[in-house]
Amino acid sequence: MPAKLGIVAGGGTLPARLIEACRARGRPFHVLAFRDHADPAPLADAPADWIRLGEAGGVVELLRRAGVSEVVMAGPIRRPSLAELRPDWRTVRLVARLGAHSIGDDGLLRAVVREFEIEGFRVIGINDVLDDLVATIGPYGRIEPDEQGWDDVRRGVSVARALGAVDVGQSVVVQQGLVLGVEAIEGTDALIARCAALKREGPGGVLVKLPKPGQERRADLPTVGVATLRNAAAAGLRGIAVEAGGTLVVGRDEVAAAADELGLFVIGVAP
Amino acid sequence: MPAKLGIVAGGGTLPARLIEACRARGRPFHVLAFRDHADPAPLADAPADWIRLGEAGGVVELLRRAGVSEVVMAGPIRRPSLAELRPDWRTVRLVARLGAHSIGDDGLLRAVVREFEIEGFRVIGINDVLDDLVATIGPYGRIEPDEQGWDDVRRGVSVARALGAVDVGQSVVVQQGLVLGVEAIEGTDALIARCAALKREGPGGVLVKLPKPGQERRADLPTVGVATLRNAAAAGLRGIAVEAGGTLVVGRDEVAAAADELGLFVIGVAP
Repeated sequence: MPAKLGIVAGGGTLPARLIEACRARGRPFHVLAFRDHADPAPLADAPADWIRLGEAGGVVELLRRAGVSEVVMAGPIRRPSLAELRPDWRTVRLVARLGAHSIGDDGLLRAVVREFEIEGFRVIGINDVLDDLVATIGPYGRIEPDEQGWDDVRRGVSVARALGAVDVGQSVVVQQGLVLGVEAIEGTDALIARCAALKREGPGGVLVKLPKPGQERRADLPTVGVATLRNAAAAGLRGIAVEAGGTLVVGRDEVAAAADELGLFVIGVAP
Repeated sequence: MPAKLGIVAGGGTLPARLIEACRARGRPFHVLAFRDHADPAPLADAPADWIRLGEAGGVVELLRRAGVSEVVMAGPIRRPSLAELRPDWRTVRLVARLGAHSIGDDGLLRAVVREFEIEGFRVIGINDVLDDLVATIGPYGRIEPDEQGWDDVRRGVSVARALGAVDVGQSVVVQQGLVLGVEAIEGTDALIARCAALKREGPGGVLVKLPKPGQERRADLPTVGVATLRNAAAAGLRGIAVEAGGTLVVGRDEVAAAADELGLFVIGVAP
C-alpha cells in the first residue's frame, strides 16, 4: 500500500489530474484546498479540507490528522499581501524567518517546501505522480518553427532566463525579435491578452515559458495546457516554446491535437 | 551663430521643449517629425518636414537640404514591424546591416545614431540642449521613501538592470517586495495602468525607471514628467525612482510641485 498522498491544491486542472491518477492506481489521498484558488467541482467527492491562505499552521495539522506522509503541491496560488493573509502565528513565524519584503515568489515557495520538510513530510513533485506531464524535446503536433520562429524562441529564452535570475516571471512574448511583453504577477493569460494589442504586422509572435533558474521544482513548475494554446492563437501568436524537463504540458495528446487544429507550433527545447 | 539644429521628433513633449529652447536662445533649427508619433500642434509654426518611419534615406536628404549639421533625437518612437516600415532602399540596407531579427530597441537606436554620424552629422543628446532635464540625486519635492519604499526601490533597480542587460524595457513596478509588472514595449503608462489592477492591500508600490546598461544616451533616455506622476498616483503607487544622470525629468519644478500635491515621492538614486 503506497503512503497516503497529501494534495495541496491551488488553481488550474492539476489537482483534479492528481486525484484521477491516485484513483486509477488505488492510492489513498487527501486534499488541502486553498479557498479562492482551487476549483471546487472536482473536489466535491474527494476527501478534502478547505483552508484560507493565512492558515499555514492549519495545513500541517490537517495533513497530520488525515494520516498523510507525502505531500505534492499543485496549481498556482496568487501571492497575497500580508494584510490579505490575516496570518496565524505559524505563518507569521514563517514570514518573519523569510523576510517577506525582499523575496520573490520562488523564495516563498522554496520556504514552504522547507517548512513541510521540517514538519516531517516528504515533498514530491507533480511529475513524480503524473510522469507524462513534463515537457519533452521536440514538437507537439505537426507544426515546427521556421527560421523566424526559432529566432524569436532564442530571444525569448534569453530574456526569460535574465528575468528568472532575479526571480520574476516565467513567460515572454517575442515577435520578429521584438519583446512584446514580459510576465510578472499578472499571469500568462493576461500577458498573452495584452500582447494581442501590441502585435506588429507580419509573422506572429512566440510565447516562451520556462522555469526560473534554481526554481523549486516541487512547488511550482510553469505549466501550459490547451487553454494556453487557445489564448495564444486568439492573440495572433504562432507558437509556444517550453523547456523540456522544466515545464509541464498538461495533456500531451490534447495539446498536440489542439496545436494542429489551431495552426500553432508547440515545442520543447533543451534547457 | 550656433550651428543649425536638426530635431528628429518622436512623441511626447520633448520636441516642443527643444523648439522653445532654440527660440529662447535664437538658435536656428529644423524639425524632422515622424508621422503618427510627433504631436503636430507645437510644430504648426516651426520649420518642419513630416516623414514616415520607413524613409530613412529621406531623413538624411531633408536634414542636408535644411542646412543642418547637428542632430538631436527627441521623443519615443514605437518600433514598427518591417511590413509597416515599407522601407526605402537605405532603410533596407541599414536593417540588413543590423540583422533586424535579433536586436532590441536600443540596438536599433544605436545604429541610427551611427548612421547619422556616417552621413557626417554630429549627434548630440537632449541634455546638451536642455541642461536642466537630467535627473539629480535626491528627492524632488518634500516626500522621501520610508524603509519599505527604499526596499521596493532597491528590488526594482535590480530587476530593471537584469532586464536592461537583455535590452528590454526600462520600468518596473514593485510593491512590498513583489514585482507587480515589468515593461516591454507597452510603455510606462500602460504598465502603470495594469499595475493598478494587480496591487495588494497595504503600502502602495514604487515605479523604478532606469536607462539600460550601455543604452545609447543620445537617442532615447527614459523620461518621466508630470503625466507620469499623475498616472502613478491614480494607480495607487507611492513613489517613483529614477537614475540620477540617466533619466530625464521633464520640468523639475512642475514635477516637484506635482509630487507634493499628489503625495508621492520622486527620487533620483545614484547609478
